[in-house]
Amino acid sequence: MQGRARILLATRVRMLRARYGWSQERLAEVSGLHRNYIGHIERAELNIGLDNLERLACAFDVSVAEMLLDGGMEQGDRR
Amino acid sequence: MQGRARILLATRVRMLRARYGWSQERLAEVSGLHRNYIGHIERAELNIGLDNLERLACAFDVSVAEMLLDGGMEQGDRR
Repeated sequence: MQGRARILLATRVRMLRARYGWSQERLAEVSGLHRNYIGHIERAELNIGLDNLERLACAFDVSVAEMLLDGGMEQGDRR
Repeated sequence: MQGRARILLATRVRMLRARYGWSQERLAEVSGLHRNYIGHIERAELNIGLDNLERLACAFDVSVAEMLLDGGMEQGDRR
């Protein structure tokens, strides 16, 4: 199961970025992270730290937990 | 809001550890992380990486998202 969280996050970032219609460059601007860093995250190549995970969550206006939800599921869908 | 995620996680780790009745040493054994590292996490002193967050989630048998949920709330409680 090790490494699964990176893939969850990569999927989630791509999904949220698509929802906003943002390029990687735009997400980089909004989050204050480097554009290359965003690319690494979306390819699950990088062991992101919690502080930067929080920057991404802030950029997308979601909770940090929501950055790591499984697949297309929203917290509101959970029972 | 920067730093809030560390406090969320610290609270969550202490709560889950209490639920299992585990000492920091026991959590260290189960997760494969160092006991001092667990202490730093519970004092929100450390920018944990996603891979180690996943180790903690595995140890507690919860999802990585659940490691970062707010306060005493469970995913099942959310609407």
